[in-house]
Amino acid sequence: MWSNSKDGELRERSRKVIPGGMYGHQSTLLSPDGYPQFFERADGARLWDVDGHGYIDYVCAYGPNLFGYNHPAIRAAAEEQQGLGDAMTGPTARIVELAEGLVSTVAHAEWAMFCKNGTDATSLAIMAARAHTGRRKILKAKGAYHGAAAWCKPLMTGVIAEDRAHQIHFEFNSISSLERAAREAGDDLAGVMVSAFLHDAFHDQALTDPEFARYARDLCDRTGALLIVDDVRAGFRMARDCSWATVGVEPDLSCWAKVVANGYPIGCLLGNEKTRDAAANLHVTGSFWFAAVPMAAAIKTLELIRTTDYLEHLEYIGGLLRDGLAEQARSYGFSLKQTGPVQMPAVMFDGDPDFRMGYAWTREVLKRGSYLHPWHNMFMCVAMTEDDVTRTLVATDEAFDILKKTVNTLGPNEKLRPLFELAEA
Amino acid sequence: MWSNSKDGELRERSRKVIPGGMYGHQSTLLSPDGYPQFFERADGARLWDVDGHGYIDYVCAYGPNLFGYNHPAIRAAAEEQQGLGDAMTGPTARIVELAEGLVSTVAHAEWAMFCKNGTDATSLAIMAARAHTGRRKILKAKGAYHGAAAWCKPLMTGVIAEDRAHQIHFEFNSISSLERAAREAGDDLAGVMVSAFLHDAFHDQALTDPEFARYARDLCDRTGALLIVDDVRAGFRMARDCSWATVGVEPDLSCWAKVVANGYPIGCLLGNEKTRDAAANLHVTGSFWFAAVPMAAAIKTLELIRTTDYLEHLEYIGGLLRDGLAEQARSYGFSLKQTGPVQMPAVMFDGDPDFRMGYAWTREVLKRGSYLHPWHNMFMCVAMTEDDVTRTLVATDEAFDILKKTVNTLGPNEKLRPLFELAEA
Repeated sequence: MWSNSKDGELRERSRKVIPGGMYGHQSTLLSPDGYPQFFERADGARLWDVDGHGYIDYVCAYGPNLFGYNHPAIRAAAEEQQGLGDAMTGPTARIVELAEGLVSTVAHAEWAMFCKNGTDATSLAIMAARAHTGRRKILKAKGAYHGAAAWCKPLMTGVIAEDRAHQIHFEFNSISSLERAAREAGDDLAGVMVSAFLHDAFHDQALTDPEFARYARDLCDRTGALLIVDDVRAGFRMARDCSWATVGVEPDLSCWAKVVANGYPIGCLLGNEKTRDAAANLHVTGSFWFAAVPMAAAIKTLELIRTTDYLEHLEYIGGLLRDGLAEQARSYGFSLKQTGPVQMPAVMFDGDPDFRMGYAWTREVLKRGSYLHPWHNMFMCVAMTEDDVTRTLVATDEAFDILKKTVNTLGPNEKLRPLFELAEA
Repeated sequence: MWSNSKDGELRERSRKVIPGGMYGHQSTLLSPDGYPQFFERADGARLWDVDGHGYIDYVCAYGPNLFGYNHPAIRAAAEEQQGLGDAMTGPTARIVELAEGLVSTVAHAEWAMFCKNGTDATSLAIMAARAHTGRRKILKAKGAYHGAAAWCKPLMTGVIAEDRAHQIHFEFNSISSLERAAREAGDDLAGVMVSAFLHDAFHDQALTDPEFARYARDLCDRTGALLIVDDVRAGFRMARDCSWATVGVEPDLSCWAKVVANGYPIGCLLGNEKTRDAAANLHVTGSFWFAAVPMAAAIKTLELIRTTDYLEHLEYIGGLLRDGLAEQARSYGFSLKQTGPVQMPAVMFDGDPDFRMGYAWTREVLKRGSYLHPWHNMFMCVAMTEDDVTRTLVATDEAFDILKKTVNTLGPNEKLRPLFELAEA
C-alpha cells in the first residue's frame, strides 16, 4: 500500500520554518499529487523518498548527477581532499589542476574562474562582457532561463525595472529576430547570451540551428561583442566540450555548474584569450569559491568525461527510452512530443495545454517506481542500464493504459493555473 | 631555510589558466611578499602551505573556520550524510531540521531559506525587502561590503549605472546621516541594510552604537521598511544569535554564510513573521541550494554553538592576543590600532597610511609561523589554544623588534598603490 506519511509530517514541519513550505525548483508545489517532497538517499540512478519508495530517477538532481549518485571514484577523490582541507585561507593546487583540465577539454577555453552557482557563472559572464567592451546591451532569448538573480529570474517579484535595463530579447534560433535585437543595441552591444539549446520549461525543446549559431558568432565578430553560451544545464551532456561544439561554433565565454563535479557544488566561467584581461579585472569572489573538495571531485569527473564512453552510453540509453515511449504512445493512440537531445529529453503530450494528461501519466509512472518530470527537461545519467529503461517502459506502458481509460475524466490542472496566470500578468 | 619553490611553480602554472593568476579575496596580489598563494592542508587552527610551512591561522578561511578545520564531529556528520545523498532531485529532512534549529537559535527568525554564497543571502534580502514593501530604495553604509554581485561589489568593472539604482548611502553609526538618507528615499524606502559592525577592509573597525541600531529599528518600524543585518562575516562570532543581539536590536531579515556549516558551503536568509509571504513569493533557486551534506554539517555546528562555551573561549583567546600585542607595541614604542571585537580583530599601525609598516611586520610574523592579515579583519577559532597565542606572541615580539630597527628604511607600499588609486577614481 502506498503511504507517504513521513513526507506529510515533514511537509507540516517545513511549512512552519520555510517560506511556502519549500521554495525553488525542488518545491513540489507545481508537481503532480503524490510526488514526494523529501528524500532519504540516492545511489547510482536510484533515489529513495523518506517513506522508503525507490525510483529510477530521470531528473538526476536537475542535472548534477551525471555519472551516478555516490560515484565511488569521485567520492573517493572528494574524501581524500576533505582529509587535507576544503575551504581554507587560500586555494590549493586543485584549482590550477582543474583549470588546466577544463582548458584542455573545452576547445574555446584558455582560462577558468570558479564560483558556486550557475547564476554566479552567468552573472560573471554578463559583467565580463560589459567590462571587455565598455558597452551595456545584452541580447538574450525570450523566455530562456539564465538563473535566479534579479537581472534574470523568471518572475518579477522583488525585481525593479533597472535590474533588467539594457537587455534586449530575441527568439532563439531566429536569425532575423537576433538581427533586429542587434540593430536595436546599435553600438552599445556588449554580449549575446544563448542557451546550449532551447530548453525552456513548459515548452518543447529544440536543438540549436547551426546557421543561427554561425550568425550569432559572426555578429559578435563584426561588432566586438562577446558570445556567451550558458552551458549550466546542458554542459558535458551534449559534448566533451562546450555544447555549441555540436553546431561547430565556439563562444568567447561559457558558463558551467551542475555536472562539473558530479553533484559537489561548483560553477565556473570559461573564456578565450581575448576575454582574459576583462575577467582578471572583475574583482569578484565568494566565501566558498576556492574550496578544494568540489575541485578534487571535478578533476575526477573530468577524467571520466575524457576517458570513458559516458556520452555514447547516455545517447544509447536515452535512445532506448525515446524509442520505447514512441512505440507505446503510438499503440495507445497518443501523440507524444519527445523533444531535445535523447540524453536530456522533454516528454509532453500533444494537445495538453494545461498538462493534465502529463500530470496523470507521470503520476502513474511514479507509483510504479520511475521518477519522470511532466514539464521540465529530464536528464539521463551514466549509471542507468538497459534494465532500468526496460523497467521504466513497463511502468509507462501501464500508465498509458490507465490514461487511455481515464483521459476523458481528467479535470483542469489546478496546480499550474496560478503560474500560467502569473506568466501572463 | 625558507623556500617557496612549489608555490612559485604553481603560480606560474596558474597565470596561464586563471585570469591574473588568481582572483578574489584569496588572491595574494595585495598580500605582503612571501605570503603563500597555495596551501596543502589544514587542521584545527593550523594551516600548511604547499612548501610545507605551517602556520597558526588567524584568518580562518576568512571566517568559515569557527570550530577548527576538519572538526571531527562536524566532519562525521557530513560524511554520514554523504553516504546517503547530497545534491539529489529533492531536499532531505535535513533542510527542515536545520531551519528549525536556526529558528530556535536566532531570536528574530521565524523562517529560513538556504543558498550557497553570502552574496546570495544579501541579494535575496534586497529582493525580499522590495517584494515586501513594493518600494525600491535601499539604504546601505558607504564602503560596507555586502558581496560580489553587480549591485554591491566594491569596484565598478563590468557594472552599469542601473545596477546601483535606488541605493542611498549613509555613514555607519551616524544617526544624522541615516536620517538624511531616509529623507532622500521618501516614501520609496524598501530596506536598510547594515553590517553586524563596521568591518570595512583597510579601515579601523567599530562596534555598532546601540543608539544608532535603535534608530535604524525605529526608522524601519515607522516607515514599514525592512531592517536587514548582513551577518555573513560576523555571524555566530558575536553572539549565539544575530550579531545585533549584542546591541539589543532585532532585524527583520538577517543574511548568513561562512560559519553556518564550519566551512561546508551554505548560506541562508532568516526572517521574521511579517517577511514570510514576501520570501515565499521570491521564486529563487540554485543547483546546489538543497544539497544535504552542508546542512548536516550545519546542524552539528549549530549544536556546538548552542551547547558549548565556544563564544567565551573565542573572547578569552582573542583577549589574550590583544593584550599581548598591546603590551609589546607599547614596549617597542609603536602605536597599534586594535579594533573591533577581540574575536574578529583588526590590527593596524597608527600613522601607516599605505600599510608599509603593517606589511613589514606581518611578513616577519608569517616567517615565524603565524598567519596574520595586514588590512582585513582576522578571525579567531575555537581550536586556538593559550599555547598558540603564546607562540604567536613570541613571533610578534621578534617582528616588532625587527620593525623598530628597519622602520626608517621602509619604502612606499607598491602593492596597494593601484588599489588606492582605483578607489579614488
